[in-house]
Amino acid sequence: MGLTKQQRVVVNQAPPYVALKANSKLPTVLTVATSDPSGGAGIEADLKTFTTHKCYGLTCLAALTAQTPQDVYSIHEVPKKHFELSLTSVLRDMRVDAIKTGMLTKNSVEVLLEVLSAMEPAKRPFLVVDPVLIASSGANLMNDEAVVQQIKALAPLATLLTPNIHEASQLLGCKGGKLDLHSVDDMILRAKELQLKTGCPNILLKGGHVTWTDKKTKSTVTDVLYKANGESIVYESERCGSRNTHGTGCTLASSIASNLARGETLEHAVYGGIQYVHNAIQVGCDVLNPHITENGPINHVYAIKPPLLEMVEDLCYSAHALAISSDDNSSIINLDSDSRRSSSSTSSLVSQIRDSGHFFEYLISDSRVKPHWESYVNHEFVRRVADGTLEREKFKFFLEQDYAYLDNYAQVHCLAASKAPTADDLDKSVDIVTKIKTEMNKHREKMMTHFAIDDMKHFDKIEMGTALRNYARFFDDVSKHGSWAHLCAALSPCLMGYGHALRNVQDHVTVDKNDIYYAWCQDYLAPWYVESMEEGLILLDRICQMTDDWDTLCDIYAAVCKLETEFWDAALNYKG
Amino acid sequence: MGLTKQQRVVVNQAPPYVALKANSKLPTVLTVATSDPSGGAGIEADLKTFTTHKCYGLTCLAALTAQTPQDVYSIHEVPKKHFELSLTSVLRDMRVDAIKTGMLTKNSVEVLLEVLSAMEPAKRPFLVVDPVLIASSGANLMNDEAVVQQIKALAPLATLLTPNIHEASQLLGCKGGKLDLHSVDDMILRAKELQLKTGCPNILLKGGHVTWTDKKTKSTVTDVLYKANGESIVYESERCGSRNTHGTGCTLASSIASNLARGETLEHAVYGGIQYVHNAIQVGCDVLNPHITENGPINHVYAIKPPLLEMVEDLCYSAHALAISSDDNSSIINLDSDSRRSSSSTSSLVSQIRDSGHFFEYLISDSRVKPHWESYVNHEFVRRVADGTLEREKFKFFLEQDYAYLDNYAQVHCLAASKAPTADDLDKSVDIVTKIKTEMNKHREKMMTHFAIDDMKHFDKIEMGTALRNYARFFDDVSKHGSWAHLCAALSPCLMGYGHALRNVQDHVTVDKNDIYYAWCQDYLAPWYVESMEEGLILLDRICQMTDDWDTLCDIYAAVCKLETEFWDAALNYKG
Repeated sequence: MGLTKQQRVVVNQAPPYVALKANSKLPTVLTVATSDPSGGAGIEADLKTFTTHKCYGLTCLAALTAQTPQDVYSIHEVPKKHFELSLTSVLRDMRVDAIKTGMLTKNSVEVLLEVLSAMEPAKRPFLVVDPVLIASSGANLMNDEAVVQQIKALAPLATLLTPNIHEASQLLGCKGGKLDLHSVDDMILRAKELQLKTGCPNILLKGGHVTWTDKKTKSTVTDVLYKANGESIVYESERCGSRNTHGTGCTLASSIASNLARGETLEHAVYGGIQYVHNAIQVGCDVLNPHITENGPINHVYAIKPPLLEMVEDLCYSAHALAISSDDNSSIINLDSDSRRSSSSTSSLVSQIRDSGHFFEYLISDSRVKPHWESYVNHEFVRRVADGTLEREKFKFFLEQDYAYLDNYAQVHCLAASKAPTADDLDKSVDIVTKIKTEMNKHREKMMTHFAIDDMKHFDKIEMGTALRNYARFFDDVSKHGSWAHLCAALSPCLMGYGHALRNVQDHVTVDKNDIYYAWCQDYLAPWYVESMEEGLILLDRICQMTDDWDTLCDIYAAVCKLETEFWDAALNYKG
Repeated sequence: MGLTKQQRVVVNQAPPYVALKANSKLPTVLTVATSDPSGGAGIEADLKTFTTHKCYGLTCLAALTAQTPQDVYSIHEVPKKHFELSLTSVLRDMRVDAIKTGMLTKNSVEVLLEVLSAMEPAKRPFLVVDPVLIASSGANLMNDEAVVQQIKALAPLATLLTPNIHEASQLLGCKGGKLDLHSVDDMILRAKELQLKTGCPNILLKGGHVTWTDKKTKSTVTDVLYKANGESIVYESERCGSRNTHGTGCTLASSIASNLARGETLEHAVYGGIQYVHNAIQVGCDVLNPHITENGPINHVYAIKPPLLEMVEDLCYSAHALAISSDDNSSIINLDSDSRRSSSSTSSLVSQIRDSGHFFEYLISDSRVKPHWESYVNHEFVRRVADGTLEREKFKFFLEQDYAYLDNYAQVHCLAASKAPTADDLDKSVDIVTKIKTEMNKHREKMMTHFAIDDMKHFDKIEMGTALRNYARFFDDVSKHGSWAHLCAALSPCLMGYGHALRNVQDHVTVDKNDIYYAWCQDYLAPWYVESMEEGLILLDRICQMTDDWDTLCDIYAAVCKLETEFWDAALNYKG
């Protein structure tokens, strides 16, 4: 047989810094639970969670289900003997740092109890018991009362028990299966009762199903950790409207077990678990077929970057040749995975803007951006600076926050410089850093002159307010997960908006010319600032050439305009 | 019951940039295979792989094993009816972009074949068939001949078949079960035969088990992709000595299926899969108990960053209070997870160095660093510049590569600036960027004067050599995965080493004073450079205060000194 065209590709070695830590101990977590083929819950959700927590996942299957978020179609129990061999061989041959249990069967609890009881207490792994009594899908594998008894038998060996309120009521044997909860203190009391009744030293009573009637707490999810020493921690998170809640219980217990295996304290392990689950709910994902109307699964992989994308960005990536030779090379050449999702912009408009260069106008007239841009550049804060009616302490608070902001802004520009596609882009970013430093000096001078500050240390001690933290957090997030173009889009509204906001009031600057307010207004109308804005326009025209996914650029622009508005809101509402 | 001490913690919302893409379509991959409770292979390895590829994992279990890398202790086949319900419900209710099959049973292949055949070809997901005939653990679930027949039945529906050479020989019915392979061309021919015999349009014949006798290819692993159009791609990777090879087959097929689900071309999906598996082997992990002498599993999570670490670094992280109140706060306050691994440095030496500040001396006298540092600062390249015997074209090549290096070096300093813990650290990094730009100008001038280059574009067109690529890759890797301290350690050898290397030959600079070689030598002996080195010493003394894990700092220093040596080696060995 003859041979046709061949290509030869040399595959890269492992990332050299990561490989420095070769064969190091990876924390390990074993899930003892049931399989959910649809991947949202059960050992599938557990393994996904262990993996995203950089832990090594082990499994021991008590039963298999055939289910989707729609329904449970079949349940198959694993024979006791097989379960036992599976558990004992893993515990004997593999290092196990933590165990998480989920939906169990009578047989599996018996075996687990026996095996764990036979271990020296000091050598026992952390044990997180998620006392699954009713799966969110409605199916349960055995008689409730029997499970309650089994869980209670397991509890004294556990590090942590994580019931939701339905499970708590069953474990406590409440009449009518309802916990009577009126306040957070009631939750703490219930958790304490659970500790006494089960013998598990630490209880996490989950409040996801509690519907508080109080207006103030209505939109809050409250989880209570009651600890062995009698202290309690109340974790409050904002309830989000997402319908992607399939598998939250499994994921929370798995995340906590992973964090414990990593050596975190219980308090932090729980914090990390709660935030991880909330993030996974909030980001969500679309994986159901259209006819399914049930709750979808959470997104375990919201923070993951796919390895092939990392490889393609790698200077040593050796498979570029394949991209050129392959029939369909569109997917790999475009490094921005999300740009594949298509763009809503029509192609004629796109090419018109790309040719003539008015991407800034496109952005601020986008329906998502426009309301936030308008609130931002027509802000009452600026009007009240211009006419001199803003309270001095509010302006002082603003200047301090803005000083801390600029510090962060400089740092993010350094990051943008490091991602810059050309040396020229890098130089420009570094220039901006220098300009920001100049602006910071001006802020310092203004404050020292007008607010009688004589200690330079004052500026290092500025505490970041909520609006600033949220803003800085956005920068941090786009720095970590976004492209250079996305980062440039996020950095733009500050530069462009201040100029436009001041231009909007320039005919109404009635404050005295010796006032600090006057000087502040003039700063953003000065020629050097207008020049910087011109550079900013050019940059926006440049980044719109680099991606087809203008939707995301608009989303970013809108989000940051909102953050700018909130920044001035915070100053306006400052109360000393 | 009374309540004791309570604490209240507000949990952060999801990362705001990541959350912009809420509820977007996550690529989905279904594994139809067997469970390996020890987590190295089977659906466990598959799910780990899907997760690290930012895909949504689905499962359909054909059988369960009780096994560890040591042995297979039990096998339990899933009833046909349950398997069928599990498969059909997932395919009906969930979007499935790709399917990967592993170890199957007779029943499961029958059902799978029936279900897939009933689908419209255009609506069938990508199908990657890993034709597992003999697991690396030695157990097989059914009579070989029966499996061979089943796999052959499945093959025409598959996108890709991924046999190793043992499986290929069985599929081809080779006598004695051996493929006769003498060259890569033989592999291509075998792959072509497999395509004909199985009817699967694309064949990936894996060469991991081929032991080439040829010296040149001995340390190379060769995998051959034979495509539907008759073209072939030969992927060559360096064979690594790691014993962590349990689960490579499952992982490769899962990685390829994930990449296909993500929309990559087959050629790139395979490239990505091969490199991912090689990385996972090379990094490896230690999860076996000490009595086990078998091959350990690969490290699927080498590139993952645990969510809690990300949260703690987040400006909005709200659980700092817990760190202070908890009994054991050591784990969470230290952001550098690896520093927990303990340090080999004795504590009295550590405090002595921390007090007096001689971390540079500590580094270069460390046994890992010393040989590389010595080769670096006593390099023949420098001696031959100093005495003027270095060939001009080698020096020109060096200057060009060094120019491109400085471009990258500036970029990495920008990144260090963005990670800088204080404003002062940021300023210093930005200063260095400015100095690097000056040095780049000097390089340009030298080259334009001495090598008759008059086109400025020459400098933008410099092609990076292998040594430079490897060096830049190290920077990139530590930038992505390392701390600020680690990055500073990586940036240090360039600054310190050039100064020391030139100091080592300063009494032997015999080249003419008008020679470019002379000017180059003097640059690194000049007062401004010595001053920069003083700053460099201070920085090293600063970073050693920030971590207890000096071992990793030494590993980094050693690795970069080696890269510097190789950089000069490349110039010395340059052949036009």
